[in-house]
Amino acid sequence: MLAAMTVAHQVVAAYWAAAEARDWDTFGDLLAEDVVYQAPQTREQVRGRDAYLRFNAEGFPGDWHLAVDRIVAQDRQAASWITFSGQDGVQPGLCFFDLDGKDRIARIFDFWPDPYDIPVNRAHLVERY
Amino acid sequence: MLAAMTVAHQVVAAYWAAAEARDWDTFGDLLAEDVVYQAPQTREQVRGRDAYLRFNAEGFPGDWHLAVDRIVAQDRQAASWITFSGQDGVQPGLCFFDLDGKDRIARIFDFWPDPYDIPVNRAHLVERY
Repeated sequence: MLAAMTVAHQVVAAYWAAAEARDWDTFGDLLAEDVVYQAPQTREQVRGRDAYLRFNAEGFPGDWHLAVDRIVAQDRQAASWITFSGQDGVQPGLCFFDLDGKDRIARIFDFWPDPYDIPVNRAHLVERY
Repeated sequence: MLAAMTVAHQVVAAYWAAAEARDWDTFGDLLAEDVVYQAPQTREQVRGRDAYLRFNAEGFPGDWHLAVDRIVAQDRQAASWITFSGQDGVQPGLCFFDLDGKDRIARIFDFWPDPYDIPVNRAHLVERY
């Protein structure tokens, strides 16, 4: 159980390092052949390693960089919080991952939370930072 | 290390169960006295157990329910993905947690990703689900 936890953390750290380096060979080696990516906010889905490599290599044009804020991993699951810096500014990106029995990434759930205004009904209960 | 991992998972599971039950006594017992909550999308911040209890008990009016999709925990950190159902519909909620040395929740980072349209530059690389 401890070994699997460590592997999942390392795999997700390697995944983000490969993306930042545009090292798509290494990135692809971390993926299950039948990997499934879903983005619940847009209901986007990408199935399979080849399609997912294309999505990453071609779907995000322009110069961008990412920095990992934290990775939390347990058994064959992990969550990551990154900061993505691109042509539209700086934004947090949150992912949940499932690894398969070969320690390859089999499922990715990807979230990009945008800024929004504080609802009036709770504005008196908070401060700003 | 394994024990701490399990505790963080249990604490976050208990946190969401107490919120769903509106059991604010149990909810408060899970929090550090100097807990700090931050919502990066709105830059909201709430400091201290009492203020954070008020924020939860009073800041979300109307009937609402939540279901835990997954919790991932490692050492004194955890991430959760819940589905929140309220008067404005159904929405995913994502949190990252830090526990202190007494296994109480000391930091909460809270994200509410809203739906958005698929950017045109990657629409040809995905399907919808």
